[in-house]
Parts: sequence; structure tokens; C-alpha cells
Amino acid sequence: MENIASYIREHKSRFIDELIDLLRIPSVSADSAYSQDVWNTAKKVEEKLKEAGCDVTEICETPGYPVVYAEKIIDPELPTVLVYGHYDVQPADPIELWNSDPFEPIIKKTELHPEGAIFARGACDDKGQMYMHVKAVEYMIKNNNLPCNVKFMIEGEEEVGSANLGWFIERNHDKLKNDVILISDTGMISKETPSITTGLRGLSYVEVEVTGPNRDLHSGLYGGAVANPINILNKMIASLHDENNHITIPGFYDKVEELSTEERAAMAEAPFSLDNYKSALNIKDVHGEKGYTTNERNSIRPTLDVNGIWGGYIGEGAKTVIPSKAFAKISMRLVPDQDWQEITTLFKKHFESIAPDCVTVKVTPHHGGQAYVTPIDSIGYQAASKAYEATFGKTPIPQRSGGSIPIVALFEKELESKTILMGFGLDSDAIHSPNEHFGIWNYLKGIETIPHFYKYFTELYK
Amino acid sequence: MENIASYIREHKSRFIDELIDLLRIPSVSADSAYSQDVWNTAKKVEEKLKEAGCDVTEICETPGYPVVYAEKIIDPELPTVLVYGHYDVQPADPIELWNSDPFEPIIKKTELHPEGAIFARGACDDKGQMYMHVKAVEYMIKNNNLPCNVKFMIEGEEEVGSANLGWFIERNHDKLKNDVILISDTGMISKETPSITTGLRGLSYVEVEVTGPNRDLHSGLYGGAVANPINILNKMIASLHDENNHITIPGFYDKVEELSTEERAAMAEAPFSLDNYKSALNIKDVHGEKGYTTNERNSIRPTLDVNGIWGGYIGEGAKTVIPSKAFAKISMRLVPDQDWQEITTLFKKHFESIAPDCVTVKVTPHHGGQAYVTPIDSIGYQAASKAYEATFGKTPIPQRSGGSIPIVALFEKELESKTILMGFGLDSDAIHSPNEHFGIWNYLKGIETIPHFYKYFTELYK
Repeated sequence: MENIASYIREHKSRFIDELIDLLRIPSVSADSAYSQDVWNTAKKVEEKLKEAGCDVTEICETPGYPVVYAEKIIDPELPTVLVYGHYDVQPADPIELWNSDPFEPIIKKTELHPEGAIFARGACDDKGQMYMHVKAVEYMIKNNNLPCNVKFMIEGEEEVGSANLGWFIERNHDKLKNDVILISDTGMISKETPSITTGLRGLSYVEVEVTGPNRDLHSGLYGGAVANPINILNKMIASLHDENNHITIPGFYDKVEELSTEERAAMAEAPFSLDNYKSALNIKDVHGEKGYTTNERNSIRPTLDVNGIWGGYIGEGAKTVIPSKAFAKISMRLVPDQDWQEITTLFKKHFESIAPDCVTVKVTPHHGGQAYVTPIDSIGYQAASKAYEATFGKTPIPQRSGGSIPIVALFEKELESKTILMGFGLDSDAIHSPNEHFGIWNYLKGIETIPHFYKYFTELYK
Repeated sequence: MENIASYIREHKSRFIDELIDLLRIPSVSADSAYSQDVWNTAKKVEEKLKEAGCDVTEICETPGYPVVYAEKIIDPELPTVLVYGHYDVQPADPIELWNSDPFEPIIKKTELHPEGAIFARGACDDKGQMYMHVKAVEYMIKNNNLPCNVKFMIEGEEEVGSANLGWFIERNHDKLKNDVILISDTGMISKETPSITTGLRGLSYVEVEVTGPNRDLHSGLYGGAVANPINILNKMIASLHDENNHITIPGFYDKVEELSTEERAAMAEAPFSLDNYKSALNIKDVHGEKGYTTNERNSIRPTLDVNGIWGGYIGEGAKTVIPSKAFAKISMRLVPDQDWQEITTLFKKHFESIAPDCVTVKVTPHHGGQAYVTPIDSIGYQAASKAYEATFGKTPIPQRSGGSIPIVALFEKELESKTILMGFGLDSDAIHSPNEHFGIWNYLKGIETIPHFYKYFTELYK
């Protein structure tokens, strides 16, 4: 493994250029206007896996966007690593807040990234992190030091809830057979403090529609006498949290995993500065559930957030209208033991029950996924920990993340293997936000660290 | 006056065609994309006033859109009627709910309008109602029976709060000197039950912006730990009404005119069916301030309505984002003795005071105007009442409207004359809504009734 660093030095500009080419294709899975781009990205990823040295590469059709599959089997007796990632990206809006075109990547230096960072939608989530694996495998194949088998399953619907990945996995158990699943779609504490994500929150995402009168009304002639669906929606959403910011949906907390005092004390030892957190976001105060710290609120506690709201006149100037309808997109992050389908049902039932007679309410579930916790005594976790030690010179900290990769719980159920979340992103990478970026240092460090994982995993597997 | 009916019969199709020409120009004052169309509409209105026989016609520039002025002075000793109207229209959106192009007028028969109604943005509000006056004056001039002087002041910014009309009036006191102001920008109870609007609500229109973190955040990584400005905005707006639907802004009701039991009993005598009202809007229940009837809620009581709300991801599909900002447009309808500027200040102060430390709030006043009540013993009201009697065969009912024409209170203050609101629209005309229309019967009945007003006003004035 001694020559991975020199291989990276030699091929650095090609590694960056190839990622930039991939980022130029606007593979926004949520918006059907980009459908052809999503497909083109799949083809590009397949082509790159072939160039990296995989023996088999395929565009596997599904009822939605395709899964890119690839493999390099060197010996059926050796263990197999299955790399999962996604080639689709979040929508770029609000586009006006980007300092450069989200699909015309540029490299800029920042305070955290004196070596430069690539600014583009998907730079970190997940094209950049997924492509580290392609380049790490390229290195191992070209230098004849791939110590085990590798398979790739790169999907195109992660940002819209992996709607068809379950369908694909169910039909391809044999093809996807593996000994460990490796994912880079999370972050680490900082460049100086590597960490491995050991938990993910689940997710339930719903859309609600509140209908008042059968048409938009003049707010002078009807105002005060007819329910305004925006006012009602606001009241209904406001009632979903009580004065302590607990969620008021009956049964919502019934199955929430409660951590012990010891576990919470261990969490509190991770380096964290509330002042830095607040100043990075330019907020005077944090806000969350009473009785929990910031790091607990965004990892071990469930949440309910409005991700989008709209209704009435939202153009320039003024319009005095009572709209017929108001809408919101609402997501709940869930923690271990909450079942996302059960929570979706509880939400729907509760939201419908609190609607006053003057409106009608429609709740449409979007997608969801279960929370996930991985044990730190597995050989996968140990191999990852040693890999970070080899390249960072430090033992990584196990850490629960607040994010969700809804498909991870399914992997364990269907493929009967553990998932290891080796993320190289940073909180400040602005994923899902304008000006998303990925540090070149992080990108190359990921490529450097991954081959060590293969080596240690194969050794520990014996 | 006996030949007005035959004049209308003879020129009916021209009257309709001319209105349709005017409706084709999308004079949306709220949206600067239509700026040239607003100007073109002003020119068209001036041209039509000249053709009608006015001696003087002018496009009067202001800091905003121009005022079209015209006059026909037959004798300085005779009284002068000042006609006010507006040539601008509300935005057409939500455009997808129109059954035909809002700016390609079509005539369709409806249950209420077996003679046909013109469907277009502005058909009733206010191009159709304003143009009745142009045609009524044309009749009187061409037939040599204009009994007094007439002036026209037709503005282009009514739908955005008449921002520059005060500026224009202050500079043109002499030019605008008159004995009564006549406006058709309101409705009547029904085709069988004529009514004259004797009161208008005031208005305060504001826009609010709630800012949380300095950028959009991933709702997994930050959800639960950082204030979501949409959730906070919902809580803040929800708190503006208590459980009885009273508005909670301190001081909001301090100056509200309280009607006597007798006045409320008189109001309750106007024909009204709650069942018809609910079925016309397809609502199971009405909704409003406790202790007041539907007709009181939408006329003599102040209100607070969200006219537009937006924030986060509102496109197709799902995006798990905590947005940096959330916005709402909020209007308050005010009743006599509430001062709109004082209410705007109370709103701003209260809204800022209820913002938690985790967000910052900006309140931007848009525009406003005072409520107005006209006495029914003035000669203007009596002339209008006799005019309706002449053409409807019934004494019109005096009625308070819930709408606002913010400029009316200013007219009284600056021009020292009373305003008479002779409206020929119906509640079902869908003004400010998709599929706005104006009955051809109503349009022609207005043209027929207006000359009677001039006759009776001139007689009573002597």
C-alpha cells in the first residue's frame, strides 16, 4: 500500500478533472426535466468503472432510474466488498444563492480548504465521495494489489428516497452477495479529527395539502368569514411541537431508543464548540428539544421539519387573496426502533384529525427509511478504524449522524451484511445547500484511505 | 333619459367589443414585466375618453404609472361629478386554474348570467365597471343630455395600493375640484336586489421575512438542533389569532368602531343564506371571529389573513432542507376608526417582539389605506338611490363591504367631497381569482343606471 500516495500525486489532476466532468451533468432525480441527464450520468459512471479495470459493468434498468453495477472478482474464495453510492444529486435551488453555476464546477480556496475545494451540486453528496471509490479501486487493480473482490452498486434515486433500490436488491441477491457494504455518503468531525458514522436517522417524508374554499377569493370580500387555508395550515403545523419542542403526534415517541447516561456522557466527549457552531451559522441561539444538547438533538432524537411551504401569491408586489389551497413538505427524522411506516401512519392520522371542519386535508407519503446503528466490534468497523489510523495517524471517533441513508437498514435485512460508513465530507461542505463543495484534500485523502480498508478487511476476514 | 335603453340596444355589440379590446392588454401593475402593457392601457383609456366626447384628455405622469385625466365642462356654474376608476388589474396567477386565457376574453353563458358574461382578468375589477362610465358619458354627450360637468381620474396602481395617487391629488387640487366622487369598483347583493356600498374596510399589507441559519442546511445533519425558519414562521403566524379567532396583536382592537345592537339587527335583515354561501364555496363550515355572524365578520370586523407564504423547496419531489429564510405576505382589513399606519406599526412591533432569539425577523410595510363610511343622507347617496330605482324598480339596500379602496378616505380629506360607490358586480364574479368575469347584463345595466345619477344629482344640487 506504500505507493498509493505516489499514485495519487502522479494522477491528481486527472482525478480532479474526471470528477469535474461527472459534476457537469445535472443529474437531479427529483425533477423530471433532468431525466436525460440522470441517464447520461449513469452511462458515464459505467464507463469510468470499466476504465478503472472492472471486468463486468452494467446499466441495470429498474422501474425508475437505473442502477450501475460493476465487479472485479479476483478469487471467489476471498471476501467481497460491495461499494454503494449514488450518482443523482439534490435540486440546485435556490439557484440565486449560488456564487457560481452549480453545474459548472470551479475550484476555489477557502479558509478550511487552502488546497482548494470543488464547488458544484453533488461535489460531496455523493458524486465526489462515490468517485473516491472508483479511483481507489483503479489504483488497486492497476497496481495488482486488490486483495479481495469488489462490487459496485451505484444508484440514481437516493435523493428521492431510493424508491426502486429495494426492487433491484430483491431481484439480485446472488449478484450482490458480499461480506461488507462500504459507503462514503457521510462526514467526519474535521480534517484533524477523523470519525466513522455508526448511526443514521430514519426518515418519513410527507406532503400535505389543505383546501379551503373551492377557488381563490378576494380577501376583502371574504376575509374573516371563510377559513384561509394558509392560516389554518400554519396553526396545524405550529401545533405539531409543544412549548418544549416535543413533537405532539400521539405515539410518536413510544418506540424511541433511550440512551443510557453513560452513552450520553460518551457522546458529550466528542470535540464540539457551541460558540463556533452558532457563529458558523450566524445564529444568536440554537433551538431544539428541551433536555437535550445540540449534538443529541441532531443525532439521537427524532425531529419534524417543514422542508417547503407554499400557498397564495408569492410573486412581486401584493395580491389580496385568500387562496383555495396551501401546501407543505414535511419530513421527520427518526431514531432506532421507530418504524418509518408506522410513523407515517401516525402523522397522517393525527394531521387529518386536527383539521377543522372548515377545510379538507390530504396527506401524501413521499418516501422513508429506517434508522440504522452499526456495532463497533465488527471486523468491518475495525478495518475502517485501522485504515484511518494508517492515513490520519489517529484512531477515528465513532459518531452517530443525524442524516439518513434510508436504504442502509434494507441492506442489512436483504443482504445480511453490515454497512461501514466511511465519510470524508465536512459539515461545512453545504450539501443540499447552495455552494456545495468538497475539499480536494478530503477527496484525495479518501482515495488514499480506502485501499487500506480493503487490506485490513481481507486480513481480519481470514 | 328615456332613450338610454335604446342607445344601449343600438350600440351593445360595440360596447362589448371595446371592453374586450381593453381586457386584452395585460395591465398587471404588481409585476414589472407588464410595465409596457400598463402604459399601453393608459393610452387606450385616454383615446376612448376622447372618442366619448371629452374636451380635455391627458396622460398625467406620476412617479409610478400615469393617471388618465379627462373632462367635459359644460358650465362652471353647474355641479361637477368626478369619476374615479382604475385600469390596472390583479396578477392572473394561479394561471393553471383559469379555464381560458385571462387576457384573451371570451363570452360564456352561466347559470347567473344567461345573457353571457365576459371572462377575463379585470372584466369586473375594474376595467368593466370603469368603462361603464365612459360609455354612459358617451351617451350623454352624443345625445346632448349631460346635465352637469364631468371629470375622469383613472389610475393604474389601485391593485398595488395607489402608491402615487396621493402625490397626484396633492398637486392637482384645482383640476380635480368636484361636488361628488363616483366610483364603480364594488358589488351589489344580486341582480334582483340592488345595493349601494356605504362602507369599505381599510387595509394594512405587510411582508415578513424570517431568517434562521445563514444558508440552507441539510435537514438530517442540522434538523432538531437549529431553528427552522418555516416552523418558526408558522408558530409566529399561528399565534396571531387566539382560540376564538380574535387577533392577538396588543392594541389592535382599541379603536375599532363597535356597532349598536340596532345597527347589527338592521344588517341581519339583508337577504343571506348561509347554506348557499357554504355550497357556493364548497365548504363544510365557515370560520371566523367568535360572536359575529358571517356578514359581520366580512364587513364590520377587522381581519388578518396570510395572502402568500413561501420557503424551502417547493418544486416537484422531495428535498430535505432547512431553508435559511421563510416569507409571508400578510394583510389586515381594518374597520372605521382604526388607523392603518398605527396598525402597521402595532403589527411590526408585535411581530418583532414574538420572534425567538434563534431567528431574525424583518417586517416590510407594503401599502395601506383607511376604512370609509359614507352617510346615506347626502344628496349623492340620494341621487344614486333614485337612479337604481329608475332602472331596477327597487330601492337599493345600503350595505357595508369588506373590501378596501384605500384611496377613498384620502379623496374626502383632500378633495372635500363625498364618495358614492355604485357597484354593479356580483360576489360570484371571482375578482382577484381565476375565471374572473362580468355579466353582460350587469355591464349594460350599469351604463343604463349611471346617466340617471347625473340627472338626479344635478336636480338635488340646485
